Amino acid sequence: MRYPLKVPPPSSTLQHINTSTLQHFNTFKYLRPMSVRIDDTIVALATPQGVSAIAVIRLSGKDAISITQRVFRGKRLETQPSHTIHFGMIWDGNTPIDEAVVSLYRGPKSFTREDAVEISCHGSPIIAERIIKLLMRKGARLAEPGEFTKRAFLNGRFDLAQAEAVADLINAETDNARMAALNQMRGGFSKEINHLREALVHFASLIELELDFSEEDVEFASRDDLRRLVNNIQQYTSSLIKSFDQGNVIRNGVRTVIAGRPNAGKSTLLNAILNEERAIVSEIPGTTRDIIEDEVVMGGINFRFIDTAGLRETVDVIEAMGVERTREQMKKAALILYLFDLSDTTLEHIEQEEAELKSLGIPYIKIGNKLDKSKPDLIKALRNKDFVFISASNRTHLDQLKERILSRYHLDVTPGDVVVTNLRHYHNLVKTHEALDRVIEGIDNGVTGDLLALDIRDALHYLGEITGKVTTEDLLDNIFSKFCIGK
Amino acid sequence: MRYPLKVPPPSSTLQHINTSTLQHFNTFKYLRPMSVRIDDTIVALATPQGVSAIAVIRLSGKDAISITQRVFRGKRLETQPSHTIHFGMIWDGNTPIDEAVVSLYRGPKSFTREDAVEISCHGSPIIAERIIKLLMRKGARLAEPGEFTKRAFLNGRFDLAQAEAVADLINAETDNARMAALNQMRGGFSKEINHLREALVHFASLIELELDFSEEDVEFASRDDLRRLVNNIQQYTSSLIKSFDQGNVIRNGVRTVIAGRPNAGKSTLLNAILNEERAIVSEIPGTTRDIIEDEVVMGGINFRFIDTAGLRETVDVIEAMGVERTREQMKKAALILYLFDLSDTTLEHIEQEEAELKSLGIPYIKIGNKLDKSKPDLIKALRNKDFVFISASNRTHLDQLKERILSRYHLDVTPGDVVVTNLRHYHNLVKTHEALDRVIEGIDNGVTGDLLALDIRDALHYLGEITGKVTTEDLLDNIFSKFCIGK
Repeated sequence: MRYPLKVPPPSSTLQHINTSTLQHFNTFKYLRPMSVRIDDTIVALATPQGVSAIAVIRLSGKDAISITQRVFRGKRLETQPSHTIHFGMIWDGNTPIDEAVVSLYRGPKSFTREDAVEISCHGSPIIAERIIKLLMRKGARLAEPGEFTKRAFLNGRFDLAQAEAVADLINAETDNARMAALNQMRGGFSKEINHLREALVHFASLIELELDFSEEDVEFASRDDLRRLVNNIQQYTSSLIKSFDQGNVIRNGVRTVIAGRPNAGKSTLLNAILNEERAIVSEIPGTTRDIIEDEVVMGGINFRFIDTAGLRETVDVIEAMGVERTREQMKKAALILYLFDLSDTTLEHIEQEEAELKSLGIPYIKIGNKLDKSKPDLIKALRNKDFVFISASNRTHLDQLKERILSRYHLDVTPGDVVVTNLRHYHNLVKTHEALDRVIEGIDNGVTGDLLALDIRDALHYLGEITGKVTTEDLLDNIFSKFCIGK
Repeated sequence: MRYPLKVPPPSSTLQHINTSTLQHFNTFKYLRPMSVRIDDTIVALATPQGVSAIAVIRLSGKDAISITQRVFRGKRLETQPSHTIHFGMIWDGNTPIDEAVVSLYRGPKSFTREDAVEISCHGSPIIAERIIKLLMRKGARLAEPGEFTKRAFLNGRFDLAQAEAVADLINAETDNARMAALNQMRGGFSKEINHLREALVHFASLIELELDFSEEDVEFASRDDLRRLVNNIQQYTSSLIKSFDQGNVIRNGVRTVIAGRPNAGKSTLLNAILNEERAIVSEIPGTTRDIIEDEVVMGGINFRFIDTAGLRETVDVIEAMGVERTREQMKKAALILYLFDLSDTTLEHIEQEEAELKSLGIPYIKIGNKLDKSKPDLIKALRNKDFVFISASNRTHLDQLKERILSRYHLDVTPGDVVVTNLRHYHNLVKTHEALDRVIEGIDNGVTGDLLALDIRDALHYLGEITGKVTTEDLLDNIFSKFCIGK
């Protein structure tokens, strides 16, 4: 499959561009191809591998229906209308393979906008595999990961950000992640971004038009209007960029490292949290297990807790390696739960440890453990110093700790909320913002149109990549290869 | 759910029976209820748990469509015809859950013969779970294992043997097992058994009619005709009973125990077979792994190979326990591959070991291993003694061993083949056969009609249980509880 359009890289040579610009701009340089010729028909299992009531095999492409007909007896599919269901038998020559139900979709009224078929057979891996191989012999090609969604995108069913949301939706592990993905799939920021981008394209066209008249020193594009537009766009991109802090938490959860000196009660705390939450979430009887890493959903957020080796000065080589690994884990954390053993430390030690902790620059929560065995003086001294006091082994005040953790995250995604959850979108928004900063700077410094145009084109490129108005084959491959097969 | 009919146990008191028999017989005593009132609507996930392109949630029951409508916006489902597909959004109140495609089936044109709906949503476990819980709040009940198929059976879509074949089809691990299950699902022996059973019911009715006229010494049922019919039936049941040897292999595979003295090369052989076949079957690069039990499909048959501890006389308690376990494994085997270490044994030892092996009464294959290191005299002495000579570590002659194993099984199930694969059917056929033996014996001895009738009723009961003409709630529960949820 080839995409006829090679999108120019940002800041590429501008000298080739001359008049007849507006039309040219909108339809060629900044737009992805809307109608890509996709000739072959793809097939894949759309349901998970495994024994179950039914398995669904999916075909898409111009021969989807005729290829299915070659193996299906029971009804003449070619003459049936779209969105109808037909019962029959799948045959491999004279060998019956399975009874099956065939669902017909005629393009463009299908997920991919192509003709499409879903075959529901009995949920046996050997049956599904045999039918897929049979369909491949009859002319279908095994789909690549994400190829159905890629076709839906290429055929204009939705934009790239929406296509990416399909994968996020499937992989959502919390209800907030599901809601954020669904919002994005249903449009999210796509419409607004395209709207702002179109306005910017308009300015870019006017400015590039100026280049043709450069000797006459005309200004088709009002610099004041441009500044106003850029400010508008930056206001929007700023809010999107800010939303990524939460979006990242929603989509990827919070990597939470439990650290502290040896014997501070780190493993006890981890097991207490996991068992507590497990008991609530899945009603599996809480058995105390020794775990060094596990996930749990609290307050609609997926927390990945990581236990670490105790931190202390040591001459023992092996132990020193453990301590080094712990420091690395702490640097990669989104949140550190730092335990102090109240029964075996002093205020001075605590202050010393906190200084080190602070120097990492990672958000942390200070936990005073072994509350039941602590010296009253120490607790008194730590009051109003933002500690959570617990006893992990007695499970005392774990609810307070949980509250403290959750208070950092205010997540309740509701229908229509626009949250950037995708790292690629975030990067592009940041780069757009930077390019627009340069545009403003250029206007302020009264630079010439051709230089302004360069930065505007950069911004347009990065914005366009988000929704797929600008794409390259590599970008698409990179995105869709992370999908599962059959989607 | 209650089944109004309580089927009398076989050989129950016959004295209650009097005239008006034939009609009575056919419609009440020997028939399962054809129309069971099933009031509630069931729901379950029909696809495996896991992240995938789509998940399918299935509903069946009189409210299937209206319950779906309560959570689905996009189209008025109630007015849509059967076998149509509708795109829309699943809503939980004002919260959108997922875009979904709804397939409508109106009874009796559905799998269960009831109104049924399939909801295809994105293949996320949390989405599927949320939709199922939502549907349960709206009036559906979570289906029990096999409940969809049970309803299909109770609503007369197919008989019990066919319903059981559905589960076999899903669980088929080889193409032969698939074909045997498909044949059974499409009718198999059901029709023939019902045909023979009807003829026998006719005789039973006539004989029981005689009882009302017992003082007059009439014989409505010709004993010669009855004998002929019973012989016919027994001819058929015999062939079905015989087919179970193969049927069992087809459905359950061959439990193959690898045994021999310590260091005979048992693990080496197991790993050689597994890696060899894996390489062929799945094209996964053959990595040598140490396995003590694994399955592999050869010649369309599923072999479960089990490695064992070496057999030898020992005073070591732990080792003795291992040897004991090996003997138990050998007794449970369908086939024993017995290895002799040709580099370290004598003819006398071999004969001694074989005598022990023979005494188990389990089919076995004698394998001379370490062919490359054996004494030529020994090989000469063993010639024509039915050995397979191999070198497991060099993978020499493994193909000959495979041929020898497969030569015991001639399996190539073709469309329409009738093979009994189900242990329950086998048991019932054996019991039918025995009851019919008693009928013949009774005729030979000129016993009275009431005694003959007892044995005929036994035969009718056991035959009827196969196809479900006779059922009890327990029997159905037992059968369908082994199905997966959603089927």
